[in-house]
Amino acid sequence: MFLKNAWYCAGWGKDLSMAREELQTRRIAGEALLLYRDVDGKAVVLEDRCCHRQAALSCGKREQGGIRCMYHGWLFESGGKCIEIPGMEIIPDRARVRAFPVVERDGWIWVWMGDADKADPDLICFAVGPDDPDWLLNTGQMSIKSNYRLEIANLADLTHLAWTHDKTFGGTRAYADARIKYKLTKRGMNYEFWMRDAPAFNVFAHLFPEGMRFDFHFDVQMTLPCNFVMRFRSFTAGTVTEGESDGELLLDTYTCQAVTPRDEGSLDYYYSWGPHRDTQQPGITQSLMAWAHEAFLEDKQMLEAQYLRVKEKPDHPVVDYIHDAGPGKLLWLLDKLIDDERTEDAEASSSRQGTAFV
Amino acid sequence: MFLKNAWYCAGWGKDLSMAREELQTRRIAGEALLLYRDVDGKAVVLEDRCCHRQAALSCGKREQGGIRCMYHGWLFESGGKCIEIPGMEIIPDRARVRAFPVVERDGWIWVWMGDADKADPDLICFAVGPDDPDWLLNTGQMSIKSNYRLEIANLADLTHLAWTHDKTFGGTRAYADARIKYKLTKRGMNYEFWMRDAPAFNVFAHLFPEGMRFDFHFDVQMTLPCNFVMRFRSFTAGTVTEGESDGELLLDTYTCQAVTPRDEGSLDYYYSWGPHRDTQQPGITQSLMAWAHEAFLEDKQMLEAQYLRVKEKPDHPVVDYIHDAGPGKLLWLLDKLIDDERTEDAEASSSRQGTAFV
Amino acid sequence: MFLKNAWYCAGWGKDLSMAREELQTRRIAGEALLLYRDVDGKAVVLEDRCCHRQAALSCGKREQGGIRCMYHGWLFESGGKCIEIPGMEIIPDRARVRAFPVVERDGWIWVWMGDADKADPDLICFAVGPDDPDWLLNTGQMSIKSNYRLEIANLADLTHLAWTHDKTFGGTRAYADARIKYKLTKRGMNYEFWMRDAPAFNVFAHLFPEGMRFDFHFDVQMTLPCNFVMRFRSFTAGTVTEGESDGELLLDTYTCQAVTPRDEGSLDYYYSWGPHRDTQQPGITQSLMAWAHEAFLEDKQMLEAQYLRVKEKPDHPVVDYIHDAGPGKLLWLLDKLIDDERTEDAEASSSRQGTAFV
Repeated sequence: MFLKNAWYCAGWGKDLSMAREELQTRRIAGEALLLYRDVDGKAVVLEDRCCHRQAALSCGKREQGGIRCMYHGWLFESGGKCIEIPGMEIIPDRARVRAFPVVERDGWIWVWMGDADKADPDLICFAVGPDDPDWLLNTGQMSIKSNYRLEIANLADLTHLAWTHDKTFGGTRAYADARIKYKLTKRGMNYEFWMRDAPAFNVFAHLFPEGMRFDFHFDVQMTLPCNFVMRFRSFTAGTVTEGESDGELLLDTYTCQAVTPRDEGSLDYYYSWGPHRDTQQPGITQSLMAWAHEAFLEDKQMLEAQYLRVKEKPDHPVVDYIHDAGPGKLLWLLDKLIDDERTEDAEASSSRQGTAFV
Repeated sequence: MFLKNAWYCAGWGKDLSMAREELQTRRIAGEALLLYRDVDGKAVVLEDRCCHRQAALSCGKREQGGIRCMYHGWLFESGGKCIEIPGMEIIPDRARVRAFPVVERDGWIWVWMGDADKADPDLICFAVGPDDPDWLLNTGQMSIKSNYRLEIANLADLTHLAWTHDKTFGGTRAYADARIKYKLTKRGMNYEFWMRDAPAFNVFAHLFPEGMRFDFHFDVQMTLPCNFVMRFRSFTAGTVTEGESDGELLLDTYTCQAVTPRDEGSLDYYYSWGPHRDTQQPGITQSLMAWAHEAFLEDKQMLEAQYLRVKEKPDHPVVDYIHDAGPGKLLWLLDKLIDDERTEDAEASSSRQGTAFV
Repeated sequence: MFLKNAWYCAGWGKDLSMAREELQTRRIAGEALLLYRDVDGKAVVLEDRCCHRQAALSCGKREQGGIRCMYHGWLFESGGKCIEIPGMEIIPDRARVRAFPVVERDGWIWVWMGDADKADPDLICFAVGPDDPDWLLNTGQMSIKSNYRLEIANLADLTHLAWTHDKTFGGTRAYADARIKYKLTKRGMNYEFWMRDAPAFNVFAHLFPEGMRFDFHFDVQMTLPCNFVMRFRSFTAGTVTEGESDGELLLDTYTCQAVTPRDEGSLDYYYSWGPHRDTQQPGITQSLMAWAHEAFLEDKQMLEAQYLRVKEKPDHPVVDYIHDAGPGKLLWLLDKLIDDERTEDAEASSSRQGTAFV
């Protein structure tokens, strides 16, 4: 079950060249897609399925005018319209493949999987891109064989950092004591919390004097389906117990993450992390990415094993606890958005039937 | 969905020896088969399933008298009749495995997958075998993870040579301009066409002076399900625009191909190609087979990707065009033959019921 | 379909250490299980599924107090009760994972997969363990992709030794002539038979003078689901034709085997074999295990191929013969026990409904 009228991340723009062979494929929300740049450099997303007999356009060939299906030579321009059928002089109007609205922003390629008329670029989530001059972000990607809702729940409750990420971002159980306010937005959820007077994370404890204490601030914006943008700051431990730390700011970072479901059982995970230019140090950008990658492999293992169990017993009872509040709210909102979309579709189709009647 | 009362190719006779270990397996039209030669050298096809408890006879052992199931030692003669049950003196009449009618002809082993009473060797398609003294045919085999109907459609419309086989048999878009007459036969379809004043195929362009032109003739006989026999001739480009070319005959070849569905999602593809003795040149037989193999790998990639797409959206609309005429007619005939067979079966079983009534 | 109220073998106790990392997983009768030793060395079996959100406990960590789920840090003691939820002061009573009764006996770990209240250690089958001072048993394990009922049938009819094990325990067709009495017990079946004046098994024929004859005695106790314990003795061929052989006892052995279904399509096979101390010779213990392993690979190939065929045609007719008596009786008993269990469950749940009514 996927939200259709939504922007899904199809990867980093910098990873898509204009080379003739650069015919990339994606699966997003169950749809097989072809991704390439047209002659103007604009990213194009077409359904990877020729309208003639369902040959894969990704087995095709880029030409000046578009993409040619190499089964029978039909040529499609970037909008999906067929503009040449070898052997035919007239091209039927139905000869078109589905084209998906695409926007490039903040280094990411965004694809609208629903009704093209409703594609609203204002719905694209805020993010800091790898090209931002103020932030020095490196990027990574990972494929995870799990349902994207489990990944959403993972990102909406960071207390798992103490456990799942014991070897990386763990080192304290104080995560569990954070009392976090989750604020639903129209299409997402924000939350932030402080961990004060905390020990170093295990992954970078070796860089600081033993016993040194820190204030950590996590400021998260999640947008459905499903992006996670977090500003994370480390201070030397200060003295205040409310509001901004009065310690020294050691590190100011942004991590921007996109979760794109391929289908019900797999997803692509795109992520970046890096420091603000002002808190940069030699090697820190590379280290953050190495730590992120290690940590996300820990998530991957957990989410894949969890998904196997959920598939075995989809109706197994659950036991709720305090830190389910974040995942619970966000998944509730996702369900609501999906429901609303279906109701809207049903009404639209019934009103269309009405029109046909008159 | 398969035609049952039909001959399916089970491979080349030359690849089946009389060695004791030569217990080959096949899957044809969904049935698991055991294939071996009996003491007289006759090819035998039995269901690969002991009648006792479904052990695989292919885990068994060849003996003088037949094939022994090595689970409990039951021995079956080549007709499928059980002739020994260790521990039993009387062998029940029901103790038999299904034997399938087999004919060897033109180098191929043919198996009848339907009602044995209806097995008519006259229905075996015309072919030129690798042992024919006039033709120097080499052979090849390939497994393809696709539905056999997609392969039939592929072979019933050769305009794809311009595109799918761009690197091999392509080099001109003139294929698409060929106006081809498809003639349905009782159990297949014939078609032929000329491509005149055409450039060399890409795969052998290096063998001829640059810019040299040719007349090519394709003469195809397809038989359901599913064989493709083509006489292909190359001439120097002549002057006539209708009928036989008045150019010089450079190469006269036969290619005989058999498509055997394993099940709905995979098939075995057997093929041969080679020149007539009179137009032979050193190396040409080997080259033709190398080119065929390369080209069929191009088909394999296309057909496997197409099948994945078709499975994703079995009801996706199609857009027809002029060159669907061949595939359309032939698949229509296949559907009709399958329907007829079912009607016949239903009538037979209802008339049997009638008989029981009296 | 599995018997739930029954002891299933989860492996050899000697293969489960107290090391912190020793978190083993099993699948038994469709359930995903976690297996480890607690601080007292007692084997513990829990469902491998956190009660919170189905994370795999086997991705967790052993602590002094039990097993900690490393997704959100919930801690469970060996009885399955949750004793810590980070961030919560009160632990809901529902926060528990299913614990399965475990008994270690005769070197094996036994798990009760049904209602814990009904777990009766007296139902554990008789076996001779690898630690028995009188018997020198080596052990082995194998995974088989087949249904466990086919393995039961295999063990309940040893006439297949002549055929399937032609290269190992074969060498004579006399197995088929054995007239065997199968005696059903409450939860199993016993049978025994002599093969007199028989040639050496092929696997050890090289150890004896050519043409030497033997009396072999097979004494089998099978218990559902599904254990096979056999005392097997070899004598020099004697003169009597009924009862105990009057030949010289050459070898007296026990083999104890446990078949544990993972699910409908796979099973774990645990086995031991070895001589009585009194008939031991240098190398014999090792040889018996090597022969067993070779023979069980023969079974594995047969059972896996058979299972593929059975899945293809689950309703294919069978042909019965005399040696199906053993498998037939034992599988009939298994079906009956499963039926009884279901009837009991249905009655229990209907009486519970009654209670709720009042």
